[in-house]
Amino acid sequence: MKTVIIGGVAGGMSAATRLRRLDEEATIVVFERGGYVSFANCGLPYFVGGVITERSSLLLQTPDGLAARFRLDVRIRHDVSAIDRVNRTVRVTDLSSGTTFDEPYDRLILATGAAAGDLEGAAGAPTFSLRTIDDIDHITATIDAVGTTATAPASAIVIGAGFIGLEAVENLRRRGVQVTLVQRGPQVFSPLDPEMASPVLRELVAHGIDVRLNTTVASATAEGLLLSDGSLVRADLVIDASGVHPQSELAAAAGLALGESGGIVVDEFQRTNDPDVYAVGDGVLKVDSLDGGDTLVTMAGLANRHGRAAADSIAGTPHPAAPALGTAIVGVFDLTVALTGWSESRLVAANRSHRVIHTHPASHASYYPGAEQMAMKLLVDPDTDRILGAQIVGGQGVDKRIDVIAVAMTAGITASGLKDLELAYAPQYGSAKDPINQIGYVADNLHSGLGRNIQWHELEQAREAGTVLIDVRTSAEFSAGHIPGALNLPIDELRERLDELPLTSLIVHCQVGQRGHTAARMLVQHGFDARNLDGGYLTWRAGIASVAGPALQG
Amino acid sequence: MKTVIIGGVAGGMSAATRLRRLDEEATIVVFERGGYVSFANCGLPYFVGGVITERSSLLLQTPDGLAARFRLDVRIRHDVSAIDRVNRTVRVTDLSSGTTFDEPYDRLILATGAAAGDLEGAAGAPTFSLRTIDDIDHITATIDAVGTTATAPASAIVIGAGFIGLEAVENLRRRGVQVTLVQRGPQVFSPLDPEMASPVLRELVAHGIDVRLNTTVASATAEGLLLSDGSLVRADLVIDASGVHPQSELAAAAGLALGESGGIVVDEFQRTNDPDVYAVGDGVLKVDSLDGGDTLVTMAGLANRHGRAAADSIAGTPHPAAPALGTAIVGVFDLTVALTGWSESRLVAANRSHRVIHTHPASHASYYPGAEQMAMKLLVDPDTDRILGAQIVGGQGVDKRIDVIAVAMTAGITASGLKDLELAYAPQYGSAKDPINQIGYVADNLHSGLGRNIQWHELEQAREAGTVLIDVRTSAEFSAGHIPGALNLPIDELRERLDELPLTSLIVHCQVGQRGHTAARMLVQHGFDARNLDGGYLTWRAGIASVAGPALQG
Ligand SMILES: Cc1cc2nc3c(=O)[nH]c(=O)nc-3n(C[C@H](O)[C@H](O)[C@H](O)COP(=O)(O)OP(=O)(O)OC[C@H]3O[C@@H](n4cnc5c(N)ncnc54)[C@H](O)[C@@H]3O)c2cc1C
Ligand SMILES: Cc1cc2nc3c(=O)[nH]c(=O)nc-3n(C[C@H](O)[C@H](O)[C@H](O)COP(=O)(O)OP(=O)(O)OC[C@H]3O[C@@H](n4cnc5c(N)ncnc54)[C@H](O)[C@@H]3O)c2cc1C
Ligand SMILES: CC(C)(COP(=O)(O)OP(=O)(O)OC[C@H]1O[C@@H](n2cnc3c(N)ncnc32)[C@H](O)[C@@H]1OP(=O)(O)O)[C@@H](O)C(=O)NCCC(=O)NCCS
Ligand SMILES: CC(C)(COP(=O)(O)OP(=O)(O)OC[C@H]1O[C@@H](n2cnc3c(N)ncnc32)[C@H](O)[C@@H]1OP(=O)(O)O)[C@@H](O)C(=O)NCCC(=O)NCCS
Repeated sequence: MKTVIIGGVAGGMSAATRLRRLDEEATIVVFERGGYVSFANCGLPYFVGGVITERSSLLLQTPDGLAARFRLDVRIRHDVSAIDRVNRTVRVTDLSSGTTFDEPYDRLILATGAAAGDLEGAAGAPTFSLRTIDDIDHITATIDAVGTTATAPASAIVIGAGFIGLEAVENLRRRGVQVTLVQRGPQVFSPLDPEMASPVLRELVAHGIDVRLNTTVASATAEGLLLSDGSLVRADLVIDASGVHPQSELAAAAGLALGESGGIVVDEFQRTNDPDVYAVGDGVLKVDSLDGGDTLVTMAGLANRHGRAAADSIAGTPHPAAPALGTAIVGVFDLTVALTGWSESRLVAANRSHRVIHTHPASHASYYPGAEQMAMKLLVDPDTDRILGAQIVGGQGVDKRIDVIAVAMTAGITASGLKDLELAYAPQYGSAKDPINQIGYVADNLHSGLGRNIQWHELEQAREAGTVLIDVRTSAEFSAGHIPGALNLPIDELRERLDELPLTSLIVHCQVGQRGHTAARMLVQHGFDARNLDGGYLTWRAGIASVAGPALQG
Repeated sequence: MKTVIIGGVAGGMSAATRLRRLDEEATIVVFERGGYVSFANCGLPYFVGGVITERSSLLLQTPDGLAARFRLDVRIRHDVSAIDRVNRTVRVTDLSSGTTFDEPYDRLILATGAAAGDLEGAAGAPTFSLRTIDDIDHITATIDAVGTTATAPASAIVIGAGFIGLEAVENLRRRGVQVTLVQRGPQVFSPLDPEMASPVLRELVAHGIDVRLNTTVASATAEGLLLSDGSLVRADLVIDASGVHPQSELAAAAGLALGESGGIVVDEFQRTNDPDVYAVGDGVLKVDSLDGGDTLVTMAGLANRHGRAAADSIAGTPHPAAPALGTAIVGVFDLTVALTGWSESRLVAANRSHRVIHTHPASHASYYPGAEQMAMKLLVDPDTDRILGAQIVGGQGVDKRIDVIAVAMTAGITASGLKDLELAYAPQYGSAKDPINQIGYVADNLHSGLGRNIQWHELEQAREAGTVLIDVRTSAEFSAGHIPGALNLPIDELRERLDELPLTSLIVHCQVGQRGHTAARMLVQHGFDARNLDGGYLTWRAGIASVAGPALQG
């Protein structure tokens, strides 16, 4: 049996190697349009930044290596331009020689990935996407040609503040380049909710990035790029990371079913509507774990996994793919930003009821030096207590907590159930009540009705309706910064000073929500109508900053 | 309603604060024998080592602070010597004044923790346990009095290479003290299986610790301590960390039910056999998550959680405790050692069938600098594919992976199911196939029968029976160290050299098991009877070293 694979990187090569392990006799041919296979796409930005110094370390395998170990017939610089499903052949052009031929297959795997759109900014300055080995060669050559020093830095515009845009910004900066980040929307990193993205913006500004929100590139002039905000920005190069789309033209032309977003439709065994044609990776629709709908999650983990799964299907031992959560992580200078499941914005857009929890725990026991504070957000179904999504922004330990929540979501552990997880604790690694357990406690209190919360963006309206805001932090904390108009009544004096409180509905708050919870419990039992400001002063401040934009940052 | 709590640290104080949040009117009295409450037991070793510099940072709360915030009546230096269950009173001695009185209760919570046994080594040198604030005051004063410098270091004997013993060793060393570690059993850190403990021993030896396995303190002489191996070791101080037992004498005297191991028996709501008496923490038996039997897990997370749960029970909103996995972690110099569930030794002792998997993945993508290799071990039920336990030893990322496995175990995710977990990946945090996914793949292959493994300790017998061992690593790797008598046939040449292989049963191996898997798949399909040496050369080497003891380390 002969399997032809189109695309020789994450999904395609994972399918090829697994298929060989399953079937020593199979004929396996891989066509890759580019000059490299099995390369580490995800490492490309870090080569630009000089973190990864050996270009060769990005090339995890070569056609020769793959032939020796896996007896794969890997042909680089071979472009597939058409699929003939009736005759089961693909039309291939050898880009080196220019010759074209038809290659027969018994089974076909499409692993063609995603592609950037037409590059914006072109003509104003050399413009690149950041997706291939060729891209990083061009980017580094351009920077080297301009030369960049502390006194005469090269300058760049990065378009798009998504995963790759943010990694591009960080790594250009690392290389000494002055960077303007142009983002169409009102916030950076739109997978996050605004108040969670606010520390990311602050981090960018703190590292000298010129961030332009609600801005696009209007046109290219000889002096530079004209932005929609009217400014002219000179740039030695432009990196367009403004988005990708599934590379599914080949599939479409062959009459394979596509979804609305252009992704190839496959069943849980990675099979398209043609039983001999499989598809995996960034070009393919996944099943969303929350609502079972179609989703485009363009992540390497899924591409690798589904590549392996396609091989299993072809070898006759199929097993169904798990739905996709969309777990993801990105480093932004000293911050780690991670998420899984749905955001609040997406839940709101889908009109799906949800409860929101913000906490700001320390990465490990605060009595042990070096703990870093993180911001956590959990989205919960108020009826079933099911976890709908999570976002975490901080330093150390962010990756651990997002993974734990992702596993909990996969397994159907409820939000309150997080409180009972038995996680590893010693003071340099976590807390006796781990951040995961603590957010579980908060969820438990809200679910059981023991606590009632109000969100940062609901505060203004509540106060207009007459609710009084009590800040239960110490007077020193209050002096260092507080919500305008809040009454300061430190929690440790609260019981003695209950008679100073107005007999109206109250909102209490502290720095992060924890003392607020204890204060609210106390007040409610003394007959007051009290709610806790979720996430405390820190979430409120991040929320307000997200409304204000870059001006308030830094 | 009046609740009296005996013991004012992890379990006791968590119960007290939660109870106050649930019931503002309750009378809550806490008796603590020692001079401090709410202190960070787990931080004590790091104060000895000077990592934690502020003694006050270990005191998370004070009686005054707890009175102000939670209206708790906390009495330090108050020892409870008897419980009168008929009259519902406890007999209390105020250790400061010497007066004794009876305190009535409606509900009683025992949170008396665990205690060290009689201290070994006494008389030969000042001998301490490492459990309280007083202990660290005495230990640091003793070291300061002796003085310790690079040329004239103080010397110490630590008895017991468990969690606290290892933390004591590391922190004494950090302070410049010369340490002899005396361990009764044949390996350090007995919760690990021998081959997993072997890198821990290597780490201790590399940091200049004199480790004596299979050794006890025989007697104390004026010149020092005489060990069972016949040697005399001079020591300025001795830390006895040779084990603890539940502090349940009070409960026993009051006729409360105890288990065989001396732990107090409670139901899933933390209630003893007296419905008015609850018990939590190190003194209490937990339900083992694997076999449902009694287990003593003396961990702060469970003490805190069960303390909170006892308060919920008393307040009338009981919820059942989750069974205990025994997840734990400890830092040993530059190593992190973590585990959850059962070890192979324990499974063998219980005659419970199990499958063993060893891997040695990198903490993050190996093309991104700074990745650290870890050793992972997974124990799996061969019939059901259930995860029975895990052990991980390495650097970065060990804590994350043990937590993910602990959550998977709690949720009933199978070993093969680990392959489908959607974990956060960017190159500085993980791999597109995370170590968790990879060990899931290995489990999947063994479960489906696609792969067959053999363990390091089974190798000798198999070879005596005529099986031939093929090392499929490169010749450079082979030259750098190999298993005696192995035939070197690099994987990338294997297909061409099949005719060089003997037609007998084969074992293949590589460095960690990964190439061995590909090689075994190839050979099996070419008609050979081939198994893969689980964990490869690295696990074999660690296993052999664990048999050889400290002599082979370093
Ligand atoms: C800069 C960058 C950073 C990233 N960082 C992360 C990260 O940190 N974490 C993460 O999870 N994911 C990350 N990703 C995404 C990840 O790389 C992709 O999800 C993954 O590579 C998708 O695999 P794939 O096989 O679908 O596509 P690809 O790996 O993109 O491979 C598709 C291949 O198909 C070839 N091809 C397409 N059409 C044809 C044709 N007609 N004929 C022949 N060949 C063809 C292409 O040339 C391409 O090489 C990153 C991506 C980039 C670009
Ligand atoms: C050095 C050290 C390091 C540790 N490191 C870790 C770690 O890294 N991770 C982890 O999970 N766990 C760790 N532990 C274990 C953890 O501290 C315990 O599991 C936890 O403290 C148990 O809580 P508890 O309430 O049962 O007992 P404790 O916290 O020990 O409190 C019991 C209290 O009861 C008091 N008491 C006892 N009897 C009486 C009486 N009759 N009258 C009055 N008072 C009485 C005692 O004085 C004591 O203060 C460590 C323990 C130590 C000693
Ligand atoms: C390099 C590449 C060809 C390797 O493919 P691969 O051999 O399938 O994958 P790995 O090297 O991770 O090995 C996985 C195999 O080893 C096995 N394995 C891993 N560790 C093992 C161990 N300790 N013992 C036994 N088997 C082990 C796994 O079970 C799996 O085999 P299986 O699929 O038959 O179950 C492919 O991953 C690739 O092209 N990657 C680069 C592109 C990319 O992923 N980019 C995006 C991320 S930057
Ligand atoms: C210090 C000590 C008294 C604190 O007790 P505590 O107030 O119950 O615990 P925490 O400070 O962790 O706060 C937890 C509470 O805050 C709530 N909370 C935490 N973060 C919150 C947030 N962001 N928003 C709202 N509520 C929050 C939790 O829900 C929980 O309340 P609940 O029990 O009513 O659900 C107690 O933990 C103690 O004595 N510890 C020292 C001893 C010890 O544990 N030693 C072993 C480890 S070294």
